Amino acid sequence: MDAKITKISSATKEVEISRQNRTVIIGERINPTGRKAVLAALEAGNFDLIREDAVKQVEAGAAVLDVNAGVPGADEVALLSQLIREVMDVVDVPLCIDTANPEALEAALKIYPGKALINSVNGEEKSLAAVLPLVKKYGAAVIGLCISDEGIPVTAAARLEVADKIIERATSMGIPLEDIVIDPLAMTLGADHLAGALTLETVKLVKEKYGVNITMGSSNVSFGLPDRKYINAAYMAMAIQAGMTCPITNPLVMEIRTAALAADFALGRDEYGSRWIKDFRKRKKAA
Amino acid sequence: MDAKITKISSATKEVEISRQNRTVIIGERINPTGRKAVLAALEAGNFDLIREDAVKQVEAGAAVLDVNAGVPGADEVALLSQLIREVMDVVDVPLCIDTANPEALEAALKIYPGKALINSVNGEEKSLAAVLPLVKKYGAAVIGLCISDEGIPVTAAARLEVADKIIERATSMGIPLEDIVIDPLAMTLGADHLAGALTLETVKLVKEKYGVNITMGSSNVSFGLPDRKYINAAYMAMAIQAGMTCPITNPLVMEIRTAALAADFALGRDEYGSRWIKDFRKRKKAA
Repeated sequence: MDAKITKISSATKEVEISRQNRTVIIGERINPTGRKAVLAALEAGNFDLIREDAVKQVEAGAAVLDVNAGVPGADEVALLSQLIREVMDVVDVPLCIDTANPEALEAALKIYPGKALINSVNGEEKSLAAVLPLVKKYGAAVIGLCISDEGIPVTAAARLEVADKIIERATSMGIPLEDIVIDPLAMTLGADHLAGALTLETVKLVKEKYGVNITMGSSNVSFGLPDRKYINAAYMAMAIQAGMTCPITNPLVMEIRTAALAADFALGRDEYGSRWIKDFRKRKKAA
Repeated sequence: MDAKITKISSATKEVEISRQNRTVIIGERINPTGRKAVLAALEAGNFDLIREDAVKQVEAGAAVLDVNAGVPGADEVALLSQLIREVMDVVDVPLCIDTANPEALEAALKIYPGKALINSVNGEEKSLAAVLPLVKKYGAAVIGLCISDEGIPVTAAARLEVADKIIERATSMGIPLEDIVIDPLAMTLGADHLAGALTLETVKLVKEKYGVNITMGSSNVSFGLPDRKYINAAYMAMAIQAGMTCPITNPLVMEIRTAALAADFALGRDEYGSRWIKDFRKRKKAA
């Protein structure tokens, strides 16, 4: 299938995600899950750390920022919108609105001035019914997770079937195919040494069938393992080669960022290596 | 095509190269080309550095060692055989006999006690005529370089045609297909930013058509570029994913070795991650 182009935007900036362009890094750090400092800051209503994280990630090459306000017990409807305002105050990249709460999602979409990427819908009936109407209403793009009412499929073919279901449902509602980004689910090799290959195979199947853009939390593959950064770097390069176009990851980890840059270069997407050289100079200056 | 298994051996050890097994690293360091210290040592007839390099590479995970005695002006026939004896004196892995001189090759094959990997034949008529009879006579395996009388082809389809020619000629002489390892040629991204993608595409074509094992000097892609090790690590992982099974590389570079280990792990070839954990412990101990 021909490569689809997903366009998302902030008030002032458009980002095109596509297999012809460079890999689009979606910065993952504005998320209290697993980050105690972010959780504490959000609980205290202190946004300094968040604002700093936003700026640092963009400086390190993130073209989009994921924003998640999932603080247990907090009013996510208010908090997510505030978080988005704080981030928009310091950076101008498009945002990926990350919530499982449809109310918080709609409140965020109402105040977001561009075309957001929604993270996420999945193949569960409840999720499809709650999220897709909002995607349609606000003209957003959406990440479709390969999870169904039966759980997370354990074969690539079955994960593709979940992608089929999400794509059929969304396009039947008039959401353009190019506005759907599929997440095949990266899971840790520590629990199952076949997990990485399964995800790469799903990427290939989805790419071949639909040509849509593909994201994943690629660093999940190394969870619980030693020297994670080297596994993350290798997996980043392999997933990009397989067809992942917009990983949700941490661009501040040098090995991850350079792996994405090197993979783009090795795939012929960095003419004259100009991005490689530019990032090298930046690293050298920072060192 | 089903994955072929190439078996090579020393006097006491057999190594199986195959797409089902872990990646086989062929240590590249016993080669005076571009290594002044090795050149000076060989010119002086001092093999201490060579012996040390042999041991270090095997300790770092090389399963095979490349041995090249190309010292300008030296008697390669005598030197290559002596070099092989010195290396066999300190390590027991199979060797990859690396020479463009058919006389030196035959002298080396005569004294080599196992089944060697010959590096290399190419698609030039002169090379096919000189090398293939020796491969047949000594029952060796051989690397076939995608170079023809017309030079290095600039498309993957044309490189595949050179592989076709080498494979047809060799098998028509009774050399088994599984004893042929193809080298699609890795060239620097610094001269052509499309060079890496071209090589990966050739790997895929050769793998699909023949299922044979594939080698390359994968670090060539970064020649002349800054921060080579990160490019090499990413390209290592991508080439393994595409179908390269036995890179000729430097296992002493940690980023390269860990990339190969991580790629194997991510492709489901490292059950329970036991090799990953083992190498991590070794690195930690050495640090």
